[in-house]
Amino acid sequence: MRYALGVEYDGRPFCGFQSQADGCGVQDALQRALASVAQSSVTVVAAGRTDTGVHATLQVVHFDTTAQRPLSAWVRGVNASLPPALSVLWARDVADDFHARFSASARHYTYLLLTRQERPGLNAGRVGWYHRPLDVDSMQRAAKRVLGEHDFSSFRASGCQAKSPVKNLSVARVHASGDLVRFEFSANAFLHHMIRNLVGAFVYIGAGKHDDAWIDSLLAARDRRVAPPTFAADGLYFTGADYDARFALPFTRRDDALAA
Amino acid sequence: MRYALGVEYDGRPFCGFQSQADGCGVQDALQRALASVAQSSVTVVAAGRTDTGVHATLQVVHFDTTAQRPLSAWVRGVNASLPPALSVLWARDVADDFHARFSASARHYTYLLLTRQERPGLNAGRVGWYHRPLDVDSMQRAAKRVLGEHDFSSFRASGCQAKSPVKNLSVARVHASGDLVRFEFSANAFLHHMIRNLVGAFVYIGAGKHDDAWIDSLLAARDRRVAPPTFAADGLYFTGADYDARFALPFTRRDDALAA
Repeated sequence: MRYALGVEYDGRPFCGFQSQADGCGVQDALQRALASVAQSSVTVVAAGRTDTGVHATLQVVHFDTTAQRPLSAWVRGVNASLPPALSVLWARDVADDFHARFSASARHYTYLLLTRQERPGLNAGRVGWYHRPLDVDSMQRAAKRVLGEHDFSSFRASGCQAKSPVKNLSVARVHASGDLVRFEFSANAFLHHMIRNLVGAFVYIGAGKHDDAWIDSLLAARDRRVAPPTFAADGLYFTGADYDARFALPFTRRDDALAA
Repeated sequence: MRYALGVEYDGRPFCGFQSQADGCGVQDALQRALASVAQSSVTVVAAGRTDTGVHATLQVVHFDTTAQRPLSAWVRGVNASLPPALSVLWARDVADDFHARFSASARHYTYLLLTRQERPGLNAGRVGWYHRPLDVDSMQRAAKRVLGEHDFSSFRASGCQAKSPVKNLSVARVHASGDLVRFEFSANAFLHHMIRNLVGAFVYIGAGKHDDAWIDSLLAARDRRVAPPTFAADGLYFTGADYDARFALPFTRRDDALAA
């Protein structure tokens, strides 16, 4: 039987989603807890493999098992074994052709950036930081320029394993509330570090180092070396993925769970 | 010279505000960082001494020093030495009769409670948790009943050192946004564990175990043993204190800094 889970996590205690030899990945923690409920080893696959320090308001995973358990065991039973920063929100049995990664038609991310002179304390590790106010309008104009299909090679980490650097951004939005700037992105798929690199370029524009049209020249260059440095993982949240309605999943997206 | 600071912190890495022999208090971290800037030992006094795990969106402290430093040194210089979860937001030189604790005419707290079946993961340690929805209206009615001057002995921790159990609550408010319930309290002063004990009673009422008038009988009993257990520190935030305008402090209250 194949099961899907919706999970949330604070990325700080983990070394990213993916399983690591020393067991520090979100995947490792999930697999250990699921194995303790299934009484046999379990492998999970995620909608989006987040990097070290990246959070998830809603990550979708799937796994296969022959263990027969009520759905509540895959939620509360698993939560009893998970570390505090990781929690299962729902479980469903799904069709065998459901795949958390390959069935996802879109992925969503939010980046939270604190813009004030003093570094974050209360929200350290939960927000990125820039030391002065940014011009949100110019960043919003820049965001509109990256919408649609582009070759994002200039925003791609060197180790990125994606087959193609061409991705289709359906949402790229910037808004501010007080000193907190929120960047929202949706795409079919993202390149490695793509959002943190885009945020880095937007911050240069918001700080007045370049105008919003500069983002066109970065895209055209198709060269990582022309774009600004990667922004910190701290402010990045995986906020969900979209799946065909025939899979009948509960909520697979959670934009408003960032309050704390 | 006397200085006041506005600071924020995530309470999790600390053993409460107050200085401890092993140096794990917020006060210890502040004193170490201030001493490194002042090049001499410094003692700080806080508006409200928070317990282990309790956060602050805005805590006011004062200290005396003969060290002459620009105000920016008491902010950025100190922040460079503080642990990540603690940050100074502003510094001001103040009159010698300013006292962070005794000059405060009111103190403000917010308690965030996640009400859903699954325990918190992303916001573990940042919110309290109750495993099912609560009736906000009945809790709001109960909150109105504790407004004003009362003997809060039933909501007082056994070790509380306050001279009198009579406190005057000027704000006691409950509202909900999705599955997050927010309790707000303001008073001249609070007894030890008073908010966490009040939240415990409100949750019993919201869960339908008692009606809102029950809170009157708890107050009348003046006996800690009649009231429900203390709620977790996780969801409690010190959100500021009020001072006379003559002290000319920057913001000393921050209600909306809970987003992350």
